[in-house]
Amino acid sequence: MQQESPALSSPPLNFQLTQISSEPGQRDSRSVKKTPRLRERQWTSQPQGASRMRPVLSLSLCLLLCFALGLACVLLACLWSSRFRGGFQWDGSGLEFNWHPVLMTSGLVVMYGYASVVYRVPLTWGRSKLPWKLLHSGLMLLALLLSVVGLCAVFDVHNKNNIPNLYSLHSWVGLSAVLLFAVQWVAGFAGFLLPCSPVSFRKLLKPLHVWLGGSILSLSIAACVSGINEKLIFVLKGDNHTQPYSKLPPEALFANSLGVVIVAFGLVVLRILSNKKWQRPDPQAQDAAYTPLNQEEND
Amino acid sequence: MQQESPALSSPPLNFQLTQISSEPGQRDSRSVKKTPRLRERQWTSQPQGASRMRPVLSLSLCLLLCFALGLACVLLACLWSSRFRGGFQWDGSGLEFNWHPVLMTSGLVVMYGYASVVYRVPLTWGRSKLPWKLLHSGLMLLALLLSVVGLCAVFDVHNKNNIPNLYSLHSWVGLSAVLLFAVQWVAGFAGFLLPCSPVSFRKLLKPLHVWLGGSILSLSIAACVSGINEKLIFVLKGDNHTQPYSKLPPEALFANSLGVVIVAFGLVVLRILSNKKWQRPDPQAQDAAYTPLNQEEND
Repeated sequence: MQQESPALSSPPLNFQLTQISSEPGQRDSRSVKKTPRLRERQWTSQPQGASRMRPVLSLSLCLLLCFALGLACVLLACLWSSRFRGGFQWDGSGLEFNWHPVLMTSGLVVMYGYASVVYRVPLTWGRSKLPWKLLHSGLMLLALLLSVVGLCAVFDVHNKNNIPNLYSLHSWVGLSAVLLFAVQWVAGFAGFLLPCSPVSFRKLLKPLHVWLGGSILSLSIAACVSGINEKLIFVLKGDNHTQPYSKLPPEALFANSLGVVIVAFGLVVLRILSNKKWQRPDPQAQDAAYTPLNQEEND
Repeated sequence: MQQESPALSSPPLNFQLTQISSEPGQRDSRSVKKTPRLRERQWTSQPQGASRMRPVLSLSLCLLLCFALGLACVLLACLWSSRFRGGFQWDGSGLEFNWHPVLMTSGLVVMYGYASVVYRVPLTWGRSKLPWKLLHSGLMLLALLLSVVGLCAVFDVHNKNNIPNLYSLHSWVGLSAVLLFAVQWVAGFAGFLLPCSPVSFRKLLKPLHVWLGGSILSLSIAACVSGINEKLIFVLKGDNHTQPYSKLPPEALFANSLGVVIVAFGLVVLRILSNKKWQRPDPQAQDAAYTPLNQEEND
């Protein structure tokens, strides 16, 4: 998932790049297509002024927060299943169901979120985009696989215990998120990684890819919130001298907190993606004065 | 809620505007600050080429879809409460609770979504931004008031029936959405409508306003999905010879469909907001060649 080109008016980063590309010596070399090496040198040799350092510092802090919240999501989901719900098995029992929240949180939320911010990691800027495209695509595929195994767990448990599938709104929204994710991955692979993909298709796909990327994350969060809520209503009924959900017993407080951390993670990811100053510098702006469109770098 | 300035590289609209502002006769009038009237004339008198008509047509269709889906959300929520849940009262009974889904859907989702796309309506372009700012702010305030009354309904019912408040994850997420919405409205009013607000504060606030605007909508959708899911689990228990939620009786199918329409509405709103070609043309790009920054138009 990747945002569109940065705005003219926004970033100190791009402004600095435009300045570099407007130097008299470079203006004459319009037809020279720069190598990634040359671009890398430009990036590392320019002065590290306050205007550049500030966005990189705040971005790095935000990425760190994103990483920490993602880890917290996975950890809390694992602890909920293991400490409060009895652990993991793959035997058609409730213990197999416990894989569902862990795998959906890890795949559809955390790995998906990590994959979506790959292009925002400053270390990846100024270098060829292809390896990061492959990493973005690979992490997304891993996220999709984790989600599909997470769905298999719940279908298997339902089928072995004669529980109907796909009746709740939670299941409708969750399945829609996974299906849209699969469509998005296939379209992204065909559009941005296959060398035969026409530029016109890439240009058409990119804004849709960006919009659908954020939308899938929003749907995933909605599915997680409704799923945790549903599970707590089902299991915390207050029978056998246990406290019901409405009394907020430790498990309810713990799983609600998992939901809050998932929401916080999603908002931080959306923040990282929405800030134009944190976008991977666009070589179209960088090189506009002297090189033709570099297809690989722009899609 | 409003997006940041359009990218240099993106829209045919901006490209056309840049062409207009670069005409020889206009280049000389750099210091002339245009009146809204002049800007309006420029907008309506330029040739309606295919490059301009295409984004306006697709935007108009998207806005129409947004409007229709919003109406469908309110209609379905009203029908669910009236046909399946017994109608409306304000007497502390379940009939008072029925206001909750209707008001939250109408306020926190539909009115909020309508208010957020005000700046995308092409009819408002090329005119002074102030009236549309007031409309955006007014509709948002109405959305906030509807949401607060919707919250009052559920608190009142809970308090009169000794049902604990704020224990479910649904309530945590929903309340967070309303609180964030209130903070967003106050900050937006102070930053973008108070004449004494400094430009530096506006510039700092704008990207946060855009991000938080989309995030609040995502939280609202998550709250609606989990709320509908929770309500159906509570009321469709399958006792008294009625069908349980898992058998998907007509009410379940109806309310699940309401959830799907709410999700579709949210995705369409996010699509309208994310497409840079559909942003209100930015006078900074439009007038960059000959006018200084117009503060009112840019915030």
